[in-house]
Amino acid sequence: MDDMSKVYVMVLRCPDRPGIVHQATGAILSVDGNIIENAQFTDPDSGMFVMRTRFRSKADAQAVRGSFAAELPSNEFDVRVRPETERLRALVMVSRFDHCLLDLLYRHGNGELDVDIPLVVSNHTDCKRLVTERGIPYLHLPVSAATRHEQERRLREVIAEHRIDMVVLARYMQILSAELCAELRGRAINIHHSFLPGFKGARPYHQAHERGVKLIGATAHYVTADLDEGPIIEQDVIRVNHTHDAEALARLGRDVERSVLYRAVQAHAQDRVILIGDRTIVFS
Amino acid sequence: MDDMSKVYVMVLRCPDRPGIVHQATGAILSVDGNIIENAQFTDPDSGMFVMRTRFRSKADAQAVRGSFAAELPSNEFDVRVRPETERLRALVMVSRFDHCLLDLLYRHGNGELDVDIPLVVSNHTDCKRLVTERGIPYLHLPVSAATRHEQERRLREVIAEHRIDMVVLARYMQILSAELCAELRGRAINIHHSFLPGFKGARPYHQAHERGVKLIGATAHYVTADLDEGPIIEQDVIRVNHTHDAEALARLGRDVERSVLYRAVQAHAQDRVILIGDRTIVFS
Amino acid sequence: MDDMSKVYVMVLRCPDRPGIVHQATGAILSVDGNIIENAQFTDPDSGMFVMRTRFRSKADAQAVRGSFAAELPSNEFDVRVRPETERLRALVMVSRFDHCLLDLLYRHGNGELDVDIPLVVSNHTDCKRLVTERGIPYLHLPVSAATRHEQERRLREVIAEHRIDMVVLARYMQILSAELCAELRGRAINIHHSFLPGFKGARPYHQAHERGVKLIGATAHYVTADLDEGPIIEQDVIRVNHTHDAEALARLGRDVERSVLYRAVQAHAQDRVILIGDRTIVFS
Amino acid sequence: MDDMSKVYVMVLRCPDRPGIVHQATGAILSVDGNIIENAQFTDPDSGMFVMRTRFRSKADAQAVRGSFAAELPSNEFDVRVRPETERLRALVMVSRFDHCLLDLLYRHGNGELDVDIPLVVSNHTDCKRLVTERGIPYLHLPVSAATRHEQERRLREVIAEHRIDMVVLARYMQILSAELCAELRGRAINIHHSFLPGFKGARPYHQAHERGVKLIGATAHYVTADLDEGPIIEQDVIRVNHTHDAEALARLGRDVERSVLYRAVQAHAQDRVILIGDRTIVFS
Repeated sequence: MDDMSKVYVMVLRCPDRPGIVHQATGAILSVDGNIIENAQFTDPDSGMFVMRTRFRSKADAQAVRGSFAAELPSNEFDVRVRPETERLRALVMVSRFDHCLLDLLYRHGNGELDVDIPLVVSNHTDCKRLVTERGIPYLHLPVSAATRHEQERRLREVIAEHRIDMVVLARYMQILSAELCAELRGRAINIHHSFLPGFKGARPYHQAHERGVKLIGATAHYVTADLDEGPIIEQDVIRVNHTHDAEALARLGRDVERSVLYRAVQAHAQDRVILIGDRTIVFS
Repeated sequence: MDDMSKVYVMVLRCPDRPGIVHQATGAILSVDGNIIENAQFTDPDSGMFVMRTRFRSKADAQAVRGSFAAELPSNEFDVRVRPETERLRALVMVSRFDHCLLDLLYRHGNGELDVDIPLVVSNHTDCKRLVTERGIPYLHLPVSAATRHEQERRLREVIAEHRIDMVVLARYMQILSAELCAELRGRAINIHHSFLPGFKGARPYHQAHERGVKLIGATAHYVTADLDEGPIIEQDVIRVNHTHDAEALARLGRDVERSVLYRAVQAHAQDRVILIGDRTIVFS
Repeated sequence: MDDMSKVYVMVLRCPDRPGIVHQATGAILSVDGNIIENAQFTDPDSGMFVMRTRFRSKADAQAVRGSFAAELPSNEFDVRVRPETERLRALVMVSRFDHCLLDLLYRHGNGELDVDIPLVVSNHTDCKRLVTERGIPYLHLPVSAATRHEQERRLREVIAEHRIDMVVLARYMQILSAELCAELRGRAINIHHSFLPGFKGARPYHQAHERGVKLIGATAHYVTADLDEGPIIEQDVIRVNHTHDAEALARLGRDVERSVLYRAVQAHAQDRVILIGDRTIVFS
Repeated sequence: MDDMSKVYVMVLRCPDRPGIVHQATGAILSVDGNIIENAQFTDPDSGMFVMRTRFRSKADAQAVRGSFAAELPSNEFDVRVRPETERLRALVMVSRFDHCLLDLLYRHGNGELDVDIPLVVSNHTDCKRLVTERGIPYLHLPVSAATRHEQERRLREVIAEHRIDMVVLARYMQILSAELCAELRGRAINIHHSFLPGFKGARPYHQAHERGVKLIGATAHYVTADLDEGPIIEQDVIRVNHTHDAEALARLGRDVERSVLYRAVQAHAQDRVILIGDRTIVFS
């Protein structure tokens, strides 16, 4: 493999019509790009075409962006292209439960999570050591009903200052304001400790136990003002039975939560998730 | 193994206290029974103890029932015991979709479903050949809003006449009256083509597609007047993605439906399902 | 959607280099085709590029094939293109176990299996009624060590006469000769009632029981002379435990076998399986 | 619940005959015990009966053991009984890969793993900080072909000195001698990074990739001198496809390994695993 070449990821969206792939691959060819991976989908409900392509090229990022702007004009195409080395910058938020946070940090350290984590924000101090011992700053932003507005103002500053691309709510137990949700549309991922649209709201494992379900699950979704209704990115379940009380369900559920959140964050980090209306296309 | 011995299944329920298993196994010992399989559970929510035991004994059914009545008095214990050869008699009901029906009939013919099926009832004639070619009578009981009362009266006659122990709604698309549901409490199993408590009501696969879920499922439950809320017996899911439209979801869902319904019916047929309030204990 | 247009499936293979997708989509554009679905993969081990594309065009099959031959010369590309309505013709072979056969026939009748089935061949008569009652001819070709050569000669005639594209061994318990395996390379699918490379050879469920495994599985693979070593198309497993004897494992295994074989046959029927050396690319 | 009572776990093994459960529950009743959980199994292959019972009693451990010795004589029954608060003492051994170790330590700290961990032993120093920062001693015992005998002598001392009940090989990449395997029979658990009996030996993910499997898995088993052939305790798999190279398979495999090892260790810690010959009974 050529040492001088870079891997790029392109995501393209536009209304469907004949010739799009030909034109898009023409743009790639214009920078002598060789396609490594390509996935595409035409959504019959919306008539939208979406495409995610990884390619290798010796051209630098500026040249690639220039060529793409010329070949795929912005009035026709919604295109993003970036070198894979320019990783998304993720702000992880957490409250007291540390299982999702630990899993993300472990995989981050292990090279299994393709984001940079400039800092972790929490409304509690419980998880501080877990974060700082990995050399990641931990910002304690406590919040109450009275201070929510001020806390979110501070959060916006942090997001701007650290050039945050995505926010991961890793069991962050506070509700974000509708305004902040709107600002972070398609960029903030939450893990709901339930198989949506099953048990919404609080204490889903108690609800699940009372209902006697035989499977419990977790859902990672983009954050929206309409709580527990954001576009679903990833879900999974685990088999349970009558011997599991609500506490046992919660314990088993934590394993599902951490896996599901990781898979969702990694998919987003690799530009595999494309939002069309309230549904996601997730290229596997 | 002794040719003269029989296998019995005992199901026992009572409020929990010390000594129950000792007393119950004493009853089994009184008929020289040898336990093959035993499962038990104390439900912390209700304080009820439940136990399912298979044992082998040379005593005949009358002798076993007599001994058990003496050793496990009915004012203290709710006990049922029967030779496994006395199989439950199941009435299968169906409308137009035949995938659950076919799977049940195939397994029945194959020795994988431990019930007798004296007849199949349908409000349509679509599945008639599938049933009659296996030598099972097919009773066509059409129904409309105007004739529902009369149809259910006829259904009750059929249930009595054929000494039906359990009713299986194998995608029977008509709602039973609250009265009939109450009469069949804990004896009628429905397959809901959704992962409850997810998408209730009609067209769950369309709902699932619109919501962009990543898993779809099916739920087998006991029938209650409160539609889609009966005690859950079995559930399963299958992974789906954005390429599946509502029709594809329905096609994949059928595979889950037939497996889930079979497992629920077989568990009930083997006395593995015990109802406590609105939850089931299912001994695997 | 235009009533006059047809859906085509193209499968293309060639050594990887820049510009392939651009050239291939150029061929599609030359017949005013609009891409519905596209999947591609570059195999790093072999350096081969493979691509499967569904597109819609008003051009007829002859025109499409003509354009493709011109645009994608056969000395550079291995290309197949066909209208989806030209379905593959599958010969299903079976011995005594009918669970895979029934599942294939049921799905065939139901529109879930995109092949034509001109006939079923068996070395036994057990499954005859199951086949003929669906209006499909059933050819009884008994075989013994002495007659194997003659039986395979007859089989070749049948394959030629009925213009068979693929052979499905749906629990056909006879070994095909190395010559026939070679002739059918990449066109004959077998279901092995084990999770390969686990328990090869005979009586895998007895082996699994003796080994005390906690999962059992099934494998669908292309037939090769090296028994149980052909390229794997699909696999699945089911959880088991100590209470399952070899017979129970076999019963549970049948459910996995029928699902796995169906998924493999359908994938092949939709041109989703591409063979590179001894491994398969399966576009989901 | 009575503050003075304790929960006990009893495991009983004996040749099957009528009356065992009655006699065993009689022993429990003799200490005014109330059964919380009971599971039993008669192994048809060996004719052995095994039973695991959790019960609550106000009697102290000495009294319970005395009563049991009297009621269940050791010439007829192999019985162990202990208060649940007397947790097994586990020695965890590790080499360089830390994913299984971290998962065990995290769950240990979280109350999800019912063992004490007096120390961790490793032939490397890579994982030292992970262990010591949790306040657990880390003993570095390097080993080479020349020093193996001496290292195992030291290991035996550590096992004796720390009163170790079980050994967990959490990706410990050294082979134990046949003598040590024999001494630890039924007390040492290994995680094999393959779905046994699939790819044995080294580099299973490379083997899996070359074979083009569609599922990969992991197996936790008791250690025996016959490498990769010990009695299986737990297994699981994950779906993979052609896009996964050996490295990606290894990464996905790590998630399966850590789950499978945890479940096996926890099952052993709760006395749920009973060894009969080369197979395990695992009471779920």
